[in-house]
Amino acid sequence: MKEIKIFTPATVANISCGFDILGLCLDNVGDEMILRKVSTRGIKITNITGQDLPFDINKNVAGVSALALLENIDENVGFEIEIHKNIKPGSGIGSSAASSAGVVFAMNELLGKPFSSLELISFAMQGEKLASGTAHADNVAPALLGGFTLIRSYEPLDVLKINSPEDLYATVIHPQIELKTSDARSVLKEQVSLTNMVKQMGNLGGLISGLYTSDYQLIGRSLHDEIIEPTRSVLIPKFNQVKKAVITKGALGAGISGSGPSIFALCKGEESAQKVGKAMAEVYHKTLIDFEIHVSKINQKGIKIIQ
Amino acid sequence: MKEIKIFTPATVANISCGFDILGLCLDNVGDEMILRKVSTRGIKITNITGQDLPFDINKNVAGVSALALLENIDENVGFEIEIHKNIKPGSGIGSSAASSAGVVFAMNELLGKPFSSLELISFAMQGEKLASGTAHADNVAPALLGGFTLIRSYEPLDVLKINSPEDLYATVIHPQIELKTSDARSVLKEQVSLTNMVKQMGNLGGLISGLYTSDYQLIGRSLHDEIIEPTRSVLIPKFNQVKKAVITKGALGAGISGSGPSIFALCKGEESAQKVGKAMAEVYHKTLIDFEIHVSKINQKGIKIIQ
Repeated sequence: MKEIKIFTPATVANISCGFDILGLCLDNVGDEMILRKVSTRGIKITNITGQDLPFDINKNVAGVSALALLENIDENVGFEIEIHKNIKPGSGIGSSAASSAGVVFAMNELLGKPFSSLELISFAMQGEKLASGTAHADNVAPALLGGFTLIRSYEPLDVLKINSPEDLYATVIHPQIELKTSDARSVLKEQVSLTNMVKQMGNLGGLISGLYTSDYQLIGRSLHDEIIEPTRSVLIPKFNQVKKAVITKGALGAGISGSGPSIFALCKGEESAQKVGKAMAEVYHKTLIDFEIHVSKINQKGIKIIQ
Repeated sequence: MKEIKIFTPATVANISCGFDILGLCLDNVGDEMILRKVSTRGIKITNITGQDLPFDINKNVAGVSALALLENIDENVGFEIEIHKNIKPGSGIGSSAASSAGVVFAMNELLGKPFSSLELISFAMQGEKLASGTAHADNVAPALLGGFTLIRSYEPLDVLKINSPEDLYATVIHPQIELKTSDARSVLKEQVSLTNMVKQMGNLGGLISGLYTSDYQLIGRSLHDEIIEPTRSVLIPKFNQVKKAVITKGALGAGISGSGPSIFALCKGEESAQKVGKAMAEVYHKTLIDFEIHVSKINQKGIKIIQ
């Protein structure tokens, strides 16, 4: 195989009680990438559509991730990369992760799969480091593995995939405002009270149990964030109104997607997810802010080969 | 049924990364209790063996828990309670919880099971409040439900049972020193760094995933406590030596049982658990401190009716 075309999905990180460790994979929102294997060693970005991103491989997250993988192979090969962006950078649904994860997935396929998923995650984390300053895995892991993912540990890197119930959907509203991950991080307090930590851990345990046992109500009851959301949500216009509206319309729960500004809700079934999307839109129609709504089943497979 | 005899088990709370929310139930370590239903309203403790505990129902955890249940029934009935203690108070393996959970379980049986497990937990928590000052549920829940339990939330009370793998054993050493829960709690810091919280949550997620997927190695990798153990373990003689010795001998992991002084290890299989018990004993034989070792399968049922 010399050329591969892939769909690389958007992802929701944090998921209320899972700050920095949980992520989930969306199904019908994502970028396309085409990679070609060539006989000259090196990485070249040959085409970018949809967004104005750098072609310099050291300044592009896909370039940096590709280089991290290339350093680990001896073969005299190189790769040409086409990036067709649908996910807007700064959306909070893993735009950089889609590119970082996509490129290493595609290279691994073209090379005959020499690397494990965990190795691919670690290469893609280098792209995340370029994008946000920290080599986090909570978006690249769900993009590469699908389903829900849990980062048990960074040192050593230990990532688990957790399958989610068949009928679980995510609805995401992306308000078209810019909110940099670094800004969203700077509002966080460095210390947490032991009391709040215990509450957060109870909910994390509940959410993970709900995923394993397909208990939608438990998933919903567990979607609370005592620590990050109260501080960070003030940066997101109409956050509380959106949350209240979606719960009223039957969402299991809702929270900030990644570091924002996107807001996600989890729902049982597509009908409920669509209804929740309308409720989100109603709140934002009253503002002057443009927005996009995505309704998606949880993607259990992650990145998909198109051809 | 007028009389019931039960076995009410010891329990391990906290379990490394599950401070205040996780607990597990032991199988062959516990107290016996006999309860008789009488036609005069009220609670009376008629016999206590094994330990020197108060007969005054307002000063005895079983008495207080029994009163909490009695307040919720209109029937003109009363109960006589016999308590036969094998679990020493202050051991860190849920001595007060065994009495509190046992009495409400037995009363519920004699009454024809009018109360749910969750209601029984909330009654037994009143006994825990007498014993330690806080109405915690992380020992009474596993005693009543068996297996591993997770307190997702206290307000409202939400408790989950998590079944554990078939071949999971706990080995516990109880050094015969006094360590009051209130003292063990006073050494804790009120604030936790966000970084350590994230590490702790990763491990909690890993442990719960390991239980659902019967992944013994994952359970072992997740048995870390970045927050409580470093401070509290200094109150327990030879804690680090015991932990090192049991890991060397094949334990999946180890930590403080409850608020100590007992130390628990989780093991795969009885042979491993016995070996780990010997390793614990070897460390403590070098001290002047008396100790007891318990080797137990995880008890999936909780309290058992003997007759």
